[in-house]
Amino acid sequence: MGCGYLLPARPREREIMKLELTGLHEALTAPVSESMNFLNEIAHRFPDAISLAAGRPFEGFFDPADVPRYFEIYRRHLTDRLDGDEAAVRRTLLQYGRTKGIIHELIAEHLRVDEGITADPDALVVTVGCQEALWLTLRALRRDERDVLLAVTPSYVGVHGAAMMVDMPVLPVREAADGIDPDDLVAVVRRARAAGRNPRACYVIPDFANPSGVRLDRAKRERLLDIAAAEDLLLLEDNPYGLFGDPAGPPTLKALDRHGQVVYLGSFAKTGLPGARVGYVLADQQVTGAPAGQPLLADQLAKLKSMLTVNTSPIAQAVIGGKLLAHGHSLRAANARETETYRGNLAQVLAGLERRFADLPSVRWNVPEGGFFLLLTVPFPAGDDLLAHCAAVHRVLWTPIHHFYADATQRNVLRLSFSHLLPAEIEDGLDRLAEFIRAQSAGN
Amino acid sequence: MGCGYLLPARPREREIMKLELTGLHEALTAPVSESMNFLNEIAHRFPDAISLAAGRPFEGFFDPADVPRYFEIYRRHLTDRLDGDEAAVRRTLLQYGRTKGIIHELIAEHLRVDEGITADPDALVVTVGCQEALWLTLRALRRDERDVLLAVTPSYVGVHGAAMMVDMPVLPVREAADGIDPDDLVAVVRRARAAGRNPRACYVIPDFANPSGVRLDRAKRERLLDIAAAEDLLLLEDNPYGLFGDPAGPPTLKALDRHGQVVYLGSFAKTGLPGARVGYVLADQQVTGAPAGQPLLADQLAKLKSMLTVNTSPIAQAVIGGKLLAHGHSLRAANARETETYRGNLAQVLAGLERRFADLPSVRWNVPEGGFFLLLTVPFPAGDDLLAHCAAVHRVLWTPIHHFYADATQRNVLRLSFSHLLPAEIEDGLDRLAEFIRAQSAGN
Repeated sequence: MGCGYLLPARPREREIMKLELTGLHEALTAPVSESMNFLNEIAHRFPDAISLAAGRPFEGFFDPADVPRYFEIYRRHLTDRLDGDEAAVRRTLLQYGRTKGIIHELIAEHLRVDEGITADPDALVVTVGCQEALWLTLRALRRDERDVLLAVTPSYVGVHGAAMMVDMPVLPVREAADGIDPDDLVAVVRRARAAGRNPRACYVIPDFANPSGVRLDRAKRERLLDIAAAEDLLLLEDNPYGLFGDPAGPPTLKALDRHGQVVYLGSFAKTGLPGARVGYVLADQQVTGAPAGQPLLADQLAKLKSMLTVNTSPIAQAVIGGKLLAHGHSLRAANARETETYRGNLAQVLAGLERRFADLPSVRWNVPEGGFFLLLTVPFPAGDDLLAHCAAVHRVLWTPIHHFYADATQRNVLRLSFSHLLPAEIEDGLDRLAEFIRAQSAGN
Repeated sequence: MGCGYLLPARPREREIMKLELTGLHEALTAPVSESMNFLNEIAHRFPDAISLAAGRPFEGFFDPADVPRYFEIYRRHLTDRLDGDEAAVRRTLLQYGRTKGIIHELIAEHLRVDEGITADPDALVVTVGCQEALWLTLRALRRDERDVLLAVTPSYVGVHGAAMMVDMPVLPVREAADGIDPDDLVAVVRRARAAGRNPRACYVIPDFANPSGVRLDRAKRERLLDIAAAEDLLLLEDNPYGLFGDPAGPPTLKALDRHGQVVYLGSFAKTGLPGARVGYVLADQQVTGAPAGQPLLADQLAKLKSMLTVNTSPIAQAVIGGKLLAHGHSLRAANARETETYRGNLAQVLAGLERRFADLPSVRWNVPEGGFFLLLTVPFPAGDDLLAHCAAVHRVLWTPIHHFYADATQRNVLRLSFSHLLPAEIEDGLDRLAEFIRAQSAGN
């Protein structure tokens, strides 16, 4: 679609309209956008490959009958709450609905029970997955071209994607073996300000990060909060995997947040049901200068949501609400089997790597305490071409780390995921991976 | 949240973090954003007022039991399609899913049956309501600050909202009594180009527009398509109400589209179930320069969607899919009772206005052939303050027309909606409206 002037009008002889990719938004040609496409495409091309790449929850316990069951549990709860007013029940479940959502009180109770977080239900916005929560937050914070986001890097691909969709640059903050480097965070903030930029927030997954699997200790969490307060910076805390961890582990940033520095991004994709596409944001920051009735950042995010997806499907919310009600608001309780599965898979992968690579000192990996992922260092650059070769020849998939840097620079690191696999698949997958790495290391 | 430099770090004594509204994205202080907020707030403040403002579908036929019923119908269909592979059924319904959606083939068949549109299923992206479809399309088309959207004005509030969220100006195109003014469309395009701007598309609701209720005749549709082809412009056709109209009416723009000028935005909020929040976009334009496997505009929209909401809830899609299957893919057939209701309501409102205002020549209204809305002209400016007064004193709500201009200029026109009301509510509402208008016209 050109931007040129009018041509002689002969519409009946024109061909089908063509648009040029380079005339569309630049997110569409960015590495991050091609990342997601490439990774999907390669999984599609090699369906018999074992995927150590997909970050999906284990689906062995999925049951389609849960959908009507949870929906019915929530419907009954709603009927009680609305004193048997069936018209109001129908309206709540099936009509256009409250922009901030209908299961906010259940989510607040879940946060209290499972995370020790005190959440004002009015500070919650129920979203179409955590990705919309992240996007809304970035859209609100990105006012002009000076505004930038910081993110621990390597970082979840969706952060780079969401930021790009609001034309907001992402400044990388270094990750050390024990997680985000606080000194680098301060340095990046100050360098950005010196360059006339306005760092609005730092994105972080404190519990079992994607891709590194690292969990921050409590001291580092408090250091992060102190830096955020001192630097007048928000922390965007994303927590999709924390609930599968040891409950005696450190509290979330939000549970430690005394000054309202933390916007908490919640997901039910791993703990609820991915197919519901329900997430939320807890944004209890006060907004000065806002009209009456919208005192919180959550209220501003809701205004943006009303122009993006209007509201999150109350049917999908009801399914998640029913699951919360069925388990006393505790997703930790609801996920006892899943938690055992993920811990077992992690232990199996760690033991399997040790068994296969103990004699190869150039192959190293980190040892997360939980989560879905770990990082494997290999003695050769592992990029997309090599992944394609590995998929075709060795029938195993992994994720080149450059996808989490949103660039195309090949590095010697790959992400392994193991959340969705059965034990036999893990053994086969690691066998194939070892075959690939040994062949590659031998310069084959 | 200031953008100033570091203050001495004394985080333990700081107050709760405050953000300033003026430091957030400008959509949050724009009239369009306050519009939606104000209209919701006033309905909330006067719950006993009769609403001639809400554009909601009639909910008298809603039944929560439809949710498990439709879900089950779709599940069985899927089991057949997947040759009884229950693991694949579970995965399709409950796991992360195909970005472009899972009910695309059913939607394509619905478009064939109900609209005479030939749709390639691969050119469909199933979205979180029509609003996400619109947003994705604008995000793709808005590359830099030269890109502008045209929209017939007054226009649906959500268009202004979506455009603002991608920082894309909206240039108004005049609407005449019979709909969009084609000469003005050409003039606006050429003026924009002369000013160095790049008009990418024109938004239009050809069937029973919101807010005017106008339906374009066939000649005007063909004129619009010719202009779009000659000016190298896309038409964004939004069609939430067309199915309730006379089936002998003019075809959609997309059905007449010979050159791929039309991006068709589909909604199931009125014809399916609003609570599913499922819509779609049919974007069959070829994109040159795109990588292999993504030849269509729909593929590019899917890439953006993967960074915004990842995919539309397959559970919600299954509910709509089941409704399509239950009615032979025809939503016209599924909505026989609703169609009768809406036509009856329109006839009742038109007769009721005639009865109440025939003696007041300064009160006029247009006579749509269908849809949810009409425009009423009154002999005084009708803005938000007057609406608040009317709600408090006369207990009836309507929509000041300035909300559809995305400005705050008071005009003598208001939008009446009647889709969700029972006959007695319509009579009461019109009585209250007449009382208000007569009091106001008398300078009271």
